[in-house]
Amino acid sequence: MEALKERILNDGYVLTEEILKVDSFLNHQIDSKLMYQMGEEFKRRFANKPVTKIVTIEASGIAIAALAALSFNVPVVFAKKTQSRNLDKDTYTYPVYSFTKKQTYDIHISKKYLNEDDDVLIIDDFLANGQAAAGLIELVKQARANLTGVGIVIEKGFQKGGEELRNNGIIVESLAIVDRMTGGEIRFL
Amino acid sequence: MEALKERILNDGYVLTEEILKVDSFLNHQIDSKLMYQMGEEFKRRFANKPVTKIVTIEASGIAIAALAALSFNVPVVFAKKTQSRNLDKDTYTYPVYSFTKKQTYDIHISKKYLNEDDDVLIIDDFLANGQAAAGLIELVKQARANLTGVGIVIEKGFQKGGEELRNNGIIVESLAIVDRMTGGEIRFL
Repeated sequence: MEALKERILNDGYVLTEEILKVDSFLNHQIDSKLMYQMGEEFKRRFANKPVTKIVTIEASGIAIAALAALSFNVPVVFAKKTQSRNLDKDTYTYPVYSFTKKQTYDIHISKKYLNEDDDVLIIDDFLANGQAAAGLIELVKQARANLTGVGIVIEKGFQKGGEELRNNGIIVESLAIVDRMTGGEIRFL
Repeated sequence: MEALKERILNDGYVLTEEILKVDSFLNHQIDSKLMYQMGEEFKRRFANKPVTKIVTIEASGIAIAALAALSFNVPVVFAKKTQSRNLDKDTYTYPVYSFTKKQTYDIHISKKYLNEDDDVLIIDDFLANGQAAAGLIELVKQARANLTGVGIVIEKGFQKGGEELRNNGIIVESLAIVDRMTGGEIRFL
């Protein structure tokens, strides 16, 4: 998606060869208009495919998922990373390791909001090693729901998450795939 | 806002006399269309008031803030509850106590995304004891930004947060104010 790639080139910042900071428009400050356009692009890419629910993970997946839901006209469910006092006890759950935060946490979705009648589109802001996506896919499996595909804003093509998902036959649509970030320069696939 | 009150009456669930569960449309599963309408309502209520930025707090404030931002046509910044490896070190920060999670955590906003030129509308899903709102207001003060007001989806009128903010001269617009929840029945102000 050209508008996104331009924005990444203009406002993204290569912190290390593995970390791309896009917190000026994607995951700390949020450009909702651009996210709405990204939602429309996901809708084009998954046109004619069944989607009854968008699933994401807190916190930085919520904005893009909630805006994409306008185009898909379906509810969003976001997996929680903590067992809050207010969350149902009856949840699908799976451990996820975060390379960013260097810790493992259980993600949860209430069984009320995902079931075998659902066709699920998973949406997230980043795909790198694929830990979060794999955890969400596991929750979809636990619910016996159908996984229609995975929509990603920025895929780090030099890490293994995208390849592993595609090797497992999962449809992954990434709006921008960063091929490499050597020398502070961002190159797209 | 009538559509919201109806939805609360239809789908909300009184867990205790203090806890209202609305996770079927507000803070676990998300109804984006309703949230877009709530954003439009916030825009009506803050019409002709200056707003250059919407500020909220992760995780459950993000969806309503990101959707309201479409109507205000301004960026959102969401305060983070953890010091992630990818977050700037140079942040506004303040400790917030969560009654839901029974713990205190520091909230952070990068100094890049809030400054003295900003007119801030704080948006959040709930206002109860007002701890989160007070923490966000403190970050706005640290940035020397102007606080235009606070927009809340559901205010618990029987807890002290809303009264304290209004007593301090802050404009608080709540789309639904729950007056009491005795006997499992939800009564609005």
